[in-house]
Amino acid sequence: MNAGILLIHCPDQPGLVYKITQVIYRHQLNIISNGEFVDRNFNHFFMRTEFSGIYNREVLFQELKETLPAEVVIKLSTKQKRDICILVTKEHHCLSDLLIRNSFNELDVNLKCVVSNHQNLEGLVHKFEIPFHFITHANKDREAHEAEVLSVIQRYNPEFIVLAKYMRVLSTNFVEKFSNHIINIHHSFLPAFVGANPYAQAYDRGVKIIGATAHFVNNSLDEGPIIAQSVIPVAHTHSAREMAQAGKDVEKIVLARSLKLVLSDRVFVYRNRTIIFD
Amino acid sequence: MNAGILLIHCPDQPGLVYKITQVIYRHQLNIISNGEFVDRNFNHFFMRTEFSGIYNREVLFQELKETLPAEVVIKLSTKQKRDICILVTKEHHCLSDLLIRNSFNELDVNLKCVVSNHQNLEGLVHKFEIPFHFITHANKDREAHEAEVLSVIQRYNPEFIVLAKYMRVLSTNFVEKFSNHIINIHHSFLPAFVGANPYAQAYDRGVKIIGATAHFVNNSLDEGPIIAQSVIPVAHTHSAREMAQAGKDVEKIVLARSLKLVLSDRVFVYRNRTIIFD
Amino acid sequence: MNAGILLIHCPDQPGLVYKITQVIYRHQLNIISNGEFVDRNFNHFFMRTEFSGIYNREVLFQELKETLPAEVVIKLSTKQKRDICILVTKEHHCLSDLLIRNSFNELDVNLKCVVSNHQNLEGLVHKFEIPFHFITHANKDREAHEAEVLSVIQRYNPEFIVLAKYMRVLSTNFVEKFSNHIINIHHSFLPAFVGANPYAQAYDRGVKIIGATAHFVNNSLDEGPIIAQSVIPVAHTHSAREMAQAGKDVEKIVLARSLKLVLSDRVFVYRNRTIIFD
Amino acid sequence: MNAGILLIHCPDQPGLVYKITQVIYRHQLNIISNGEFVDRNFNHFFMRTEFSGIYNREVLFQELKETLPAEVVIKLSTKQKRDICILVTKEHHCLSDLLIRNSFNELDVNLKCVVSNHQNLEGLVHKFEIPFHFITHANKDREAHEAEVLSVIQRYNPEFIVLAKYMRVLSTNFVEKFSNHIINIHHSFLPAFVGANPYAQAYDRGVKIIGATAHFVNNSLDEGPIIAQSVIPVAHTHSAREMAQAGKDVEKIVLARSLKLVLSDRVFVYRNRTIIFD
Repeated sequence: MNAGILLIHCPDQPGLVYKITQVIYRHQLNIISNGEFVDRNFNHFFMRTEFSGIYNREVLFQELKETLPAEVVIKLSTKQKRDICILVTKEHHCLSDLLIRNSFNELDVNLKCVVSNHQNLEGLVHKFEIPFHFITHANKDREAHEAEVLSVIQRYNPEFIVLAKYMRVLSTNFVEKFSNHIINIHHSFLPAFVGANPYAQAYDRGVKIIGATAHFVNNSLDEGPIIAQSVIPVAHTHSAREMAQAGKDVEKIVLARSLKLVLSDRVFVYRNRTIIFD
Repeated sequence: MNAGILLIHCPDQPGLVYKITQVIYRHQLNIISNGEFVDRNFNHFFMRTEFSGIYNREVLFQELKETLPAEVVIKLSTKQKRDICILVTKEHHCLSDLLIRNSFNELDVNLKCVVSNHQNLEGLVHKFEIPFHFITHANKDREAHEAEVLSVIQRYNPEFIVLAKYMRVLSTNFVEKFSNHIINIHHSFLPAFVGANPYAQAYDRGVKIIGATAHFVNNSLDEGPIIAQSVIPVAHTHSAREMAQAGKDVEKIVLARSLKLVLSDRVFVYRNRTIIFD
Repeated sequence: MNAGILLIHCPDQPGLVYKITQVIYRHQLNIISNGEFVDRNFNHFFMRTEFSGIYNREVLFQELKETLPAEVVIKLSTKQKRDICILVTKEHHCLSDLLIRNSFNELDVNLKCVVSNHQNLEGLVHKFEIPFHFITHANKDREAHEAEVLSVIQRYNPEFIVLAKYMRVLSTNFVEKFSNHIINIHHSFLPAFVGANPYAQAYDRGVKIIGATAHFVNNSLDEGPIIAQSVIPVAHTHSAREMAQAGKDVEKIVLARSLKLVLSDRVFVYRNRTIIFD
Repeated sequence: MNAGILLIHCPDQPGLVYKITQVIYRHQLNIISNGEFVDRNFNHFFMRTEFSGIYNREVLFQELKETLPAEVVIKLSTKQKRDICILVTKEHHCLSDLLIRNSFNELDVNLKCVVSNHQNLEGLVHKFEIPFHFITHANKDREAHEAEVLSVIQRYNPEFIVLAKYMRVLSTNFVEKFSNHIINIHHSFLPAFVGANPYAQAYDRGVKIIGATAHFVNNSLDEGPIIAQSVIPVAHTHSAREMAQAGKDVEKIVLARSLKLVLSDRVFVYRNRTIIFD
């Protein structure tokens, strides 16, 4: 191997940076960038190190493990493209943006397929020569529909699933299969306006700013760890529909940004919060 | 009178702008700036006109009233300083900012007094030669304390009351006495984090953006019509305390901005939302 | 005709709003939205009125003209799709964004063709079934190349030309043919970093914020009237290349926003500044 | 000593983090937070380490020096209040904000004095019991006036000088005496609108965003290393005067933020750019 990203987290104690960088130095690896953080509430240490150089993965991993506290979690990742699947419903803007970026090799992924419970984005997906799976939910109960979706996705064995405006709630069962590996874009500044129709809620409340939130999905709807958020100003002149329209650009940019962070191994999840080395 | 601001709202119908500007033109008044808005949901018309020229207030008012639909609400305001009282608890940043602005005549108000349930800002207020009333809540029930506050405030007969980080909930009774004339700064991006300790809530939720909201107070805590909001980015590196620290600058700027809007007669309240001609 | 947008500007004088709305009222047209502005420096009046109803274009126009000062400029536009051509060089992000929006009917234009001095975006454009014209500048002087571009564009007789990262300077001759009808996206917060390589300039200067500017093109490079600007924060960690990468999302959003403003007749140009009724 | 901040920069080479943290570990110091950065253009390494624990300053310094490349620059600073002087002209908003923050111990400085070439802020400064020195420039050449200012300032021997809207250009001689220790707030988004009257320039150019820039002062006016910048949106409705008014809040917040960064030893200056560990 000749380059890597090391993600380490463990209970804090003196000397962790020294001990980790000592191992890296001994292996004659070059640190390209390095970030550390200690969560003072829980005394927990996080470190992300990007390095170059030739190394034996097993040996490096083993030496780090032996040097560090027993509870340490180490991820040694190489800079390779990750396999992803995208789920959508009817809205195109997030999907379009990802398809374009992917077609110009800006996403660093293998986009394996797009799955939708509607057919209207099939033409768009086919323009970019990506497999499109239409799985209608009509006349199916939630479980049956989800089982079909899961069976299609599992064929591709993706590392990450991206919900690019997928308007159906996933079951606990589904979510647990991909813990912290499902990324959703929610069309509000969470935790404001959880659930359906956030722009209508925002309009009714008369807010002067609207936003979008990209987050990992966990079992509680819209309550998973937040990766990125962004906002834009609105005014009384915006109807709920115009807010939704204006919000689309925020949604697509926030989703793309959060994907970039996750796919470049910059995101730790710890106690429902993210630690991000950007 | 030789200058004025006209605030008009009524059910929409064709020709309203024409009818209003006709009256203004007949009085040989000069329109300095003009703003209109129609709320399409409720078919309701709003217009704000700033004008100069000599006029008879009663006649102008009467002619407008006769020209417009029976349900019309007309406010004809002159550009004079409004009397305000400020309520605070312990935090100084919003109060400081208002005191400074006031001392350089940037607020366009007569700041009649500051009332607090603590004593620690008394020195600050006295520097600016503003009456300070310390009304402790110790050993009093909520009603008794509020009655004392009210009695002090009523002596000054203020048009607006500014809650510049006043950490006590006002009763329905109090609020109704000053309907849409109490302005509060809430230290979150409402409706996220209603209630106490919004920064602690924001930290726990792991948000990437925090904010502040200036709003009129109504009977439901933190649910009155929003006047202005603003946000700043935060990261995992911010503790709840550091978020609170960073948020202070947002709070003071948003409160000052909202006051400026209200005091220059730029804000309509309609069905718990604000229409703002900025 | 049964709907329209009226753009009027002329030297200010008392009664203009009254006189204009009187004509509209007499024609029994319904005002949907109305915006006015007076430039106090030059005492110049601007008004934009969106209305519905049946009307005779010639008569309406004539009556307005007779009512208003001799110097008045009136544009009475209907809500129809405008023909546009897009010019690009090698970068895809602005073009991609416009192609996607156009394919979902979000731009309100007839996108007639894309012209480029390079071939690498041909595949992208063809995905969306838009004519693509490759006109190399190799072995041609500037004049000859531009003449070819012009001759292709003129075949389509576009109302607006969009420079979606077209990296060549247009001649005075070309620009004058489309005065205030060429929209450019410049990859900096103008007037900072005029000219080539703004991100390299921004990096060298060590700025903490970068931006993008959409503007009409006039004879001085990057000095035409600004339509829209937006910014994002950067840090010492951004190389010039990473700034350019981060800036792309700002560029595409600002360009799309400015197009939307121009195409919905919301933009006046007056003395190298824009007045925008948003 | 029992706490400190270590600022180190030197040409990059493998093992620097390891070598530095080894020394810290040997001294049994606890790293509280740690930031590193390598400038890839110039292969230059930067590290900021905040630590706690008992140490011998000379020994720690010496061991670091011996371990690191010969060209290393080490600053070992303790968390103590720095002495500062503020220079102002007539505008109060930046000064007011700093006086308030200082009076509530939020600035972490000893504010030794305020110097002005006008008298109108004397009352404000005296409210906060800070020495105020009025040094008129009337009937003096630039050199003579500056010599007087310098002689007053030098009495206080400040570590930093803050130009809180000081509208006079300082000579090379003055600036060199306080190299990278003079902080200025410029009322534009530099490098746009260098020099006098930036808001008038911004108005003329028709920008849609205005800003403020805090920077260290060097010999070229407005060209020193940028510490912080911020912006707000404006529109055609803003006169130059209203832009200036709106800009004041941005200026005061940016200046305070940059001071906080500098005073907590978070800012490196390298080749006219800042590296900031925030």
